[in-house]
Amino acid sequence: MLNLGIVGLGRIGKIHVTNVQRYLSNAKVIAACPVKKKDDSFLKVNGVSLHFESYEEMIKVKKIDAVIIASPTAFHFEHIKIAAEAGKHIFCEKPIDLSYQKVKMIIDLVSRAGIQFMVGFNRRFDPHINHLKNTYDDRKIGEARVLKITSRDPKPPSLDYIKNSGGLFLDMTIHDIDMARFLVGDRVIQVSSNGTVFGDLQIGAYDDIDTAVVTLIFSNGCMVQIDNSRYCSYGYDQRIEIFGEKGKLTTNNILENSVQITNSSGHHDARAQYFFIDRYADSYLNILKNFVENILNNKPSSVSAEDGLAALSIALAAKKSLVENRSIII
Amino acid sequence: MLNLGIVGLGRIGKIHVTNVQRYLSNAKVIAACPVKKKDDSFLKVNGVSLHFESYEEMIKVKKIDAVIIASPTAFHFEHIKIAAEAGKHIFCEKPIDLSYQKVKMIIDLVSRAGIQFMVGFNRRFDPHINHLKNTYDDRKIGEARVLKITSRDPKPPSLDYIKNSGGLFLDMTIHDIDMARFLVGDRVIQVSSNGTVFGDLQIGAYDDIDTAVVTLIFSNGCMVQIDNSRYCSYGYDQRIEIFGEKGKLTTNNILENSVQITNSSGHHDARAQYFFIDRYADSYLNILKNFVENILNNKPSSVSAEDGLAALSIALAAKKSLVENRSIII
Amino acid sequence: MLNLGIVGLGRIGKIHVTNVQRYLSNAKVIAACPVKKKDDSFLKVNGVSLHFESYEEMIKVKKIDAVIIASPTAFHFEHIKIAAEAGKHIFCEKPIDLSYQKVKMIIDLVSRAGIQFMVGFNRRFDPHINHLKNTYDDRKIGEARVLKITSRDPKPPSLDYIKNSGGLFLDMTIHDIDMARFLVGDRVIQVSSNGTVFGDLQIGAYDDIDTAVVTLIFSNGCMVQIDNSRYCSYGYDQRIEIFGEKGKLTTNNILENSVQITNSSGHHDARAQYFFIDRYADSYLNILKNFVENILNNKPSSVSAEDGLAALSIALAAKKSLVENRSIII
Amino acid sequence: MLNLGIVGLGRIGKIHVTNVQRYLSNAKVIAACPVKKKDDSFLKVNGVSLHFESYEEMIKVKKIDAVIIASPTAFHFEHIKIAAEAGKHIFCEKPIDLSYQKVKMIIDLVSRAGIQFMVGFNRRFDPHINHLKNTYDDRKIGEARVLKITSRDPKPPSLDYIKNSGGLFLDMTIHDIDMARFLVGDRVIQVSSNGTVFGDLQIGAYDDIDTAVVTLIFSNGCMVQIDNSRYCSYGYDQRIEIFGEKGKLTTNNILENSVQITNSSGHHDARAQYFFIDRYADSYLNILKNFVENILNNKPSSVSAEDGLAALSIALAAKKSLVENRSIII
Repeated sequence: MLNLGIVGLGRIGKIHVTNVQRYLSNAKVIAACPVKKKDDSFLKVNGVSLHFESYEEMIKVKKIDAVIIASPTAFHFEHIKIAAEAGKHIFCEKPIDLSYQKVKMIIDLVSRAGIQFMVGFNRRFDPHINHLKNTYDDRKIGEARVLKITSRDPKPPSLDYIKNSGGLFLDMTIHDIDMARFLVGDRVIQVSSNGTVFGDLQIGAYDDIDTAVVTLIFSNGCMVQIDNSRYCSYGYDQRIEIFGEKGKLTTNNILENSVQITNSSGHHDARAQYFFIDRYADSYLNILKNFVENILNNKPSSVSAEDGLAALSIALAAKKSLVENRSIII
Repeated sequence: MLNLGIVGLGRIGKIHVTNVQRYLSNAKVIAACPVKKKDDSFLKVNGVSLHFESYEEMIKVKKIDAVIIASPTAFHFEHIKIAAEAGKHIFCEKPIDLSYQKVKMIIDLVSRAGIQFMVGFNRRFDPHINHLKNTYDDRKIGEARVLKITSRDPKPPSLDYIKNSGGLFLDMTIHDIDMARFLVGDRVIQVSSNGTVFGDLQIGAYDDIDTAVVTLIFSNGCMVQIDNSRYCSYGYDQRIEIFGEKGKLTTNNILENSVQITNSSGHHDARAQYFFIDRYADSYLNILKNFVENILNNKPSSVSAEDGLAALSIALAAKKSLVENRSIII
Repeated sequence: MLNLGIVGLGRIGKIHVTNVQRYLSNAKVIAACPVKKKDDSFLKVNGVSLHFESYEEMIKVKKIDAVIIASPTAFHFEHIKIAAEAGKHIFCEKPIDLSYQKVKMIIDLVSRAGIQFMVGFNRRFDPHINHLKNTYDDRKIGEARVLKITSRDPKPPSLDYIKNSGGLFLDMTIHDIDMARFLVGDRVIQVSSNGTVFGDLQIGAYDDIDTAVVTLIFSNGCMVQIDNSRYCSYGYDQRIEIFGEKGKLTTNNILENSVQITNSSGHHDARAQYFFIDRYADSYLNILKNFVENILNNKPSSVSAEDGLAALSIALAAKKSLVENRSIII
Repeated sequence: MLNLGIVGLGRIGKIHVTNVQRYLSNAKVIAACPVKKKDDSFLKVNGVSLHFESYEEMIKVKKIDAVIIASPTAFHFEHIKIAAEAGKHIFCEKPIDLSYQKVKMIIDLVSRAGIQFMVGFNRRFDPHINHLKNTYDDRKIGEARVLKITSRDPKPPSLDYIKNSGGLFLDMTIHDIDMARFLVGDRVIQVSSNGTVFGDLQIGAYDDIDTAVVTLIFSNGCMVQIDNSRYCSYGYDQRIEIFGEKGKLTTNNILENSVQITNSSGHHDARAQYFFIDRYADSYLNILKNFVENILNNKPSSVSAEDGLAALSIALAAKKSLVENRSIII
């Protein structure tokens, strides 16, 4: 039985609490911080008994084995450092940090502390993507030659969020970069990107873009085409295509329902699930399950700090490619 | 090289002429009747040189080897009789005749004349249905247990047409009945049907219906569910499902185009092809090809007068079942 | 807050317990019977504190407001009677009973007791089917003219189960009959059916069949074609098509995953979800939610004992139609 | 009535002859060159009466109004020059020539001669793509933001062909480049590409590749991702996706047939049409129709020499980008 503390009770933090308490029989969230008045009833209903105002206080609780870090990215480094020093295992939401140097330091901290560290690249744990990965690993289509990833959000976040997000590549594309690394299982050696502002939100003022295409080249020759957009009128568009010698593997969007209307204007299917929390509901649960199981079974982390650093450095290269309008060799 | 004469230059007759002249290198339509002023240019463009006012005159042309009978159903019997007596092979549009007795007589006429006789159940020659049949015959799903056929027309024909059509079962369902016999390859032993008038057209006045469901039982146990409608708002709906021990085989509608729109209201495919002449364009060509090849190669007819009689007797039983509201044993 | 007792801790009973404890904030299962050794840990994990050997004892617990009857069908009548007399609301798994007379008596019992009674026709509460119903009720396709329901199980149950099941029509088809009544919202006036034994299981010895087609006629003219099979090699096949004046509405199978392989033999989608408990997981939860909410809000039952009786009498008519090989007027 | 001469009786040349003779009522191929023994019967069956050994001789025939140039690319320039000087309208297969300078000269030749000149970018005339273009032009999805084109051939051509083809970008990608220009209707300002040799064929020896990804940037901001492969195990893969503000438009592959098998391993659709001549059969006919109609109606060419030059210069930039591993500004 693993005792968990959580820092950060925003949207994602609450998902983790509910998932652990409801579905995991080998773990329990016993402590949370920072707890405000409005969080009381949520925590009570979910059986989280220890409430703290500060992270430092919470970390002092001896029987906490591991922490879930779901605080804003800007606090991740500090929260990781404190937990590592206290010898607590760490599950940290993505991105670990926006700075390459800091993530390198975290790798050291974690290694010296001898703790488990997992980054929340939850998509790896989506059942459909998992099945894709397994099918690919079963060599059903041979080696990947071209990988195409489409990832488009229904709506942009607020300007406030975007300001501190590190930009499209570090905030959105990083998921697709991790996905490419996960699926291809090799090292990216070159990155190029293009991007534009098409939408109404004035994100150009923050040197950001709302639509991008990215090309990654892996050392084994596999070529990756990613396209992202902050504006997708028809919902949350999440598609992957792996093209190999013997065929292609694809995952399509999950629709809101299976009802189809056929009428004089044609044949109509429902919309794709609109929100990432609906689309990836299972993956949020599965990644926590995996985190807990690996600790309890003394297995290495499935998504390490090194994985976080690799994705970050590719995302940073994409940013550089856009600014300098050239391919970046990594 | 087979020389053909044609009687009937309506919609279907013209399709046959064009197909033969354009695509068959081993046959030619050399004569047509009854030819009116308005048909001249059509026949000229298509290289049909001999024009007759009467069928009797045309049949006298010695070098005609076979006739295509595309005249109204009421004339079929007479046209068949004359051709058979003249020793011409016969391709006759469906239905051969609305009377069971007359079709029996035709079987005799044809047999005594020693000619080839083919009924125009063209759907058997549609490439998709053909592939369905071949896949089924390859035992990919084992023996058929349930067969489901949906056949719905975009619009009802005129009241005038319906009056002389023999009713829904003899006019529309007969295609599906033939399809069931073709696919299952066995004898129907029981028929039951239900039907209603839903649409605006006053076809009840002619003891006819516009929507029907029919159940056929084959002697091997296979159960068939057919549903028909004269009114299908979304086009020409032609679907088949064969359910067997090891799986199911289906053919879906052919869409007007492959363009898909995805927007905030969902994912939209094009409409099914709207008109039977579009949907079954290939099958009209293929059936004539087959007719010609069988004659030239001294092979028996692929769709014999006996097949026509079998389908007719099942359609007549469906009609009786509706009137008497009970199952009819055949 | 509603306190529930449950009788029957088989597969379905356990699903109800888990769903209530995990997801309902306004109800709790506080008592269960008959409890055996092997059930202890399940009940403990799920927080069910009162354990009884007999139903009679459990019913004596004053604070139980309602019971979930998930015992074998043969016990339903007795369990309903006792609960009704004790003034407990009742959720009863389908079928209520195999006897028309007994279900009529239950209607009386329930009415006299002034309690809420709900039959477990859970499919009505499947999100996809619910969306189908809502879309239909929004008049998107006009009035239903033909309704087609396919329901095929991956594997037959044991012979032992079949013996006491009442046969295919009362055990399987009854779901589709209820679905037809739910969707069309009218009264069935005629039933005809056919059926055969195709599979290896010797169910003919119990006058049962493994494959059937059923035709229902509603008083508004709508014609229904149902097909059922105990053997479906490709999983759990659950499809509905409503054909109306302005179009058709369909629900297709939910696939096990969204991964597609395209290779030299074609384009391949995953199998349909194999097991009814996977396919209808949501509907088991939703129906209990609805049961609880209706009681707490003093609303009438969404699926009453009368609904159970109506479905049963149609299923019995289908049985009679098969035996007598004729249409049965209801 | 337009009289046509054709040079080149290879696979494509023969398609043009058959299409014109069979389907066009306002044009006729009256002359062909270079005619060899083996071509005699083909030309006879198709009613092409004038046979020449040399192109020069054929061009002398006064009543020839226009020529179809289906000779090897290396001869295009010479054949165009001669025809232009003789005042014949020209339909020329793609690519016009591999040299930018020569195509510029052709633009001058054609302009000075005052003739109609059309490049054979036939895909623009595919009914599905045409419908895509019309739907896009109807502003159904707003302005294009991202365009994705997949084009993969089932098998590589011979090494001999590849040697003289100008390489993947000039031979294959040029179609997709023209498609992008056609759909977006704007000017490409930047090109970047990557490519590799994955297959067995030793095309690296000719500085060629078998798999490539290309990114185009249009002046209006639209970003295009193209991916090509010479090896596609599952047939001829031809897909387009236009992503705009209000949705996306896609065209999918056309399958060989509409039969679907569902069995214990899943749900299986047929393979995509395997061969470009099957997939684009209609477009070969439609482009010739359009060529003839524009001449007869004194309309400008739908796909001009300038269009050919624009596509060529983008393809050449893609080639340069690969060699220099950087983005090329056009």
